[in-house]
Amino acid sequence: MLATMMYGPGDVRAEERDEPTILKPTDAIIRLSASCICGSDLWPYRGSNPITAPLAMGHEYCGIVVAVGSEVKSVKPGQFVVGSFCISDNTCPHCQYGFQSSCEQREFMSGAQAPLARVPLADGTLVATDELPPDDLIPSLLAVSDVLGTGWYAADAARVQPGSTVVVVGDGAVGLMGVLSARQMGAARIIAMSRHKARQELALEFGATDIIAERGDAGVAELKKMTRNVGADAVLECVGTKESMMQALECARPGSMIGYVGVPHGVEFDGQQLFFAQKGMLGGPAPVRRFLPQLMDLVLTRKINPGRVFDLELPLADVARGYRAMDQREAIKVLLRM
Amino acid sequence: MLATMMYGPGDVRAEERDEPTILKPTDAIIRLSASCICGSDLWPYRGSNPITAPLAMGHEYCGIVVAVGSEVKSVKPGQFVVGSFCISDNTCPHCQYGFQSSCEQREFMSGAQAPLARVPLADGTLVATDELPPDDLIPSLLAVSDVLGTGWYAADAARVQPGSTVVVVGDGAVGLMGVLSARQMGAARIIAMSRHKARQELALEFGATDIIAERGDAGVAELKKMTRNVGADAVLECVGTKESMMQALECARPGSMIGYVGVPHGVEFDGQQLFFAQKGMLGGPAPVRRFLPQLMDLVLTRKINPGRVFDLELPLADVARGYRAMDQREAIKVLLRM
Repeated sequence: MLATMMYGPGDVRAEERDEPTILKPTDAIIRLSASCICGSDLWPYRGSNPITAPLAMGHEYCGIVVAVGSEVKSVKPGQFVVGSFCISDNTCPHCQYGFQSSCEQREFMSGAQAPLARVPLADGTLVATDELPPDDLIPSLLAVSDVLGTGWYAADAARVQPGSTVVVVGDGAVGLMGVLSARQMGAARIIAMSRHKARQELALEFGATDIIAERGDAGVAELKKMTRNVGADAVLECVGTKESMMQALECARPGSMIGYVGVPHGVEFDGQQLFFAQKGMLGGPAPVRRFLPQLMDLVLTRKINPGRVFDLELPLADVARGYRAMDQREAIKVLLRM
Repeated sequence: MLATMMYGPGDVRAEERDEPTILKPTDAIIRLSASCICGSDLWPYRGSNPITAPLAMGHEYCGIVVAVGSEVKSVKPGQFVVGSFCISDNTCPHCQYGFQSSCEQREFMSGAQAPLARVPLADGTLVATDELPPDDLIPSLLAVSDVLGTGWYAADAARVQPGSTVVVVGDGAVGLMGVLSARQMGAARIIAMSRHKARQELALEFGATDIIAERGDAGVAELKKMTRNVGADAVLECVGTKESMMQALECARPGSMIGYVGVPHGVEFDGQQLFFAQKGMLGGPAPVRRFLPQLMDLVLTRKINPGRVFDLELPLADVARGYRAMDQREAIKVLLRM
């Protein structure tokens, strides 16, 4: 089959690889209905994470189960499933606490930018639908797997409440999903920080009430002006750079929480500064598994349309072009068709 | 009057100073029923905070109002009051949000290790009792002003819930108050990290269910053993050193919150480490004003006895001896009588 491998910064190839097989009795093999490229795939692509061996890319997935290991009980061949980018057993204390992304058996999914993928711990990781979903819902169901689940977690960790004033730092796909999530949670005011017209428009479509195009100090000043110098009740940090994190901290009102889901690169916090600013923080890889049933239901009942975040669709053979488009910010998020 | 001044590290003196007077129409002058020495007073005493000019020490207080400025409406001479170590107007958006310690007009109280003290923003800062409290409750009412309010905030920020397993890092007065607070909030298991016999006993009296005497990695290992390798649902960090903060982080289960109230000295967090460990954090100077009515009521109805934390009582003239005793850890907390 054709699969996506990354050999080094900027070097992504669709090439022939063996089809995956059941390696453990808890595995499932799924045939992907579609796949996509994640913002986090750009970290190694841009050289921010070292690559010591070729990487089998892709961790967002949904599709039809084609085989299961002998111990798998909750899903069976023929079913349509969505899974999290974090593999989890969903039974350990961390999973039971709702933090499946810290599962005692946590693994990170890989190899899903391909027509077939192996999903470990299938019972804990996958959630099946009652029936096969219509084709037009595939992009949105795929989005649940990571990008929506991650935006949702950012809003959850930031404790967005009905009536909250929310700031979303980052207009990438996750930030846009953060806007959608805050809206679903009843936020009264959702301020998206974005300076790209197409992304601003999508943010507004997803429920943003205000846009701040300025960055850095100017962006913070604008936010302060909008909130009578108070700051936001909840801040979603969806980038992971030092600049975006500082912006998030400055936008948050004292006592509020910052939900941060961009993997921090080069970010350090000074304890005393954080203390006197009195800003709360909770982040990490999103426990998407906790949210899967609710988010899949919202998609299947057509209450949300997160698939709108895909603005470029390519055949898997053109995956390298997809990476380039996202790296150059020509595309928000790329859907790959098999 | 005799008042406490710090001239440099290790150099604290009780010396004659002018009595305070109303400087602003929002001020009150109170006659202190008692005062005390705070763990945070030891930072400058130990040279960790630079002293550029003599400091009027003391920020914990309760007593009788003797004079008020022309704009003060909520308290009047003759009333018994307790105030927070953080001065706040209690009307700004941050105060209304429950974070009076980030009040737009925030000041930190000073000069309360003396028989008389000036309290700015008296309307916002002070809470009066209905009647004069009995003498034996003075130590507990004094404790509400900072040490109990701070321990309570640590538990609140760490989101202690009924049934929680809680770890308290630090067996100073604040940590012991954290134990008491967690107990009041219904924690099922309260694990105090302490290696001093007298403090262990007080922790047990305040509601600790377990003691861990080991520190550092050995202490964390013990905690992990106690919690089947899961970690605690809530961690109260009541010291502020790099070591104590690391211990707190290691003890917290993924997805839990660390309420940190020890002023961090030399503490830095690595963003990526915090991210993948998935530990939440909220700290800062305690918004004691939010808790004052509730905590004063718990004391006045004799449901709690935080005054037990004072294990040495000295006349104000001997304040230098009190600082030495706390610095040497010969006393947990020193009460000063006027």
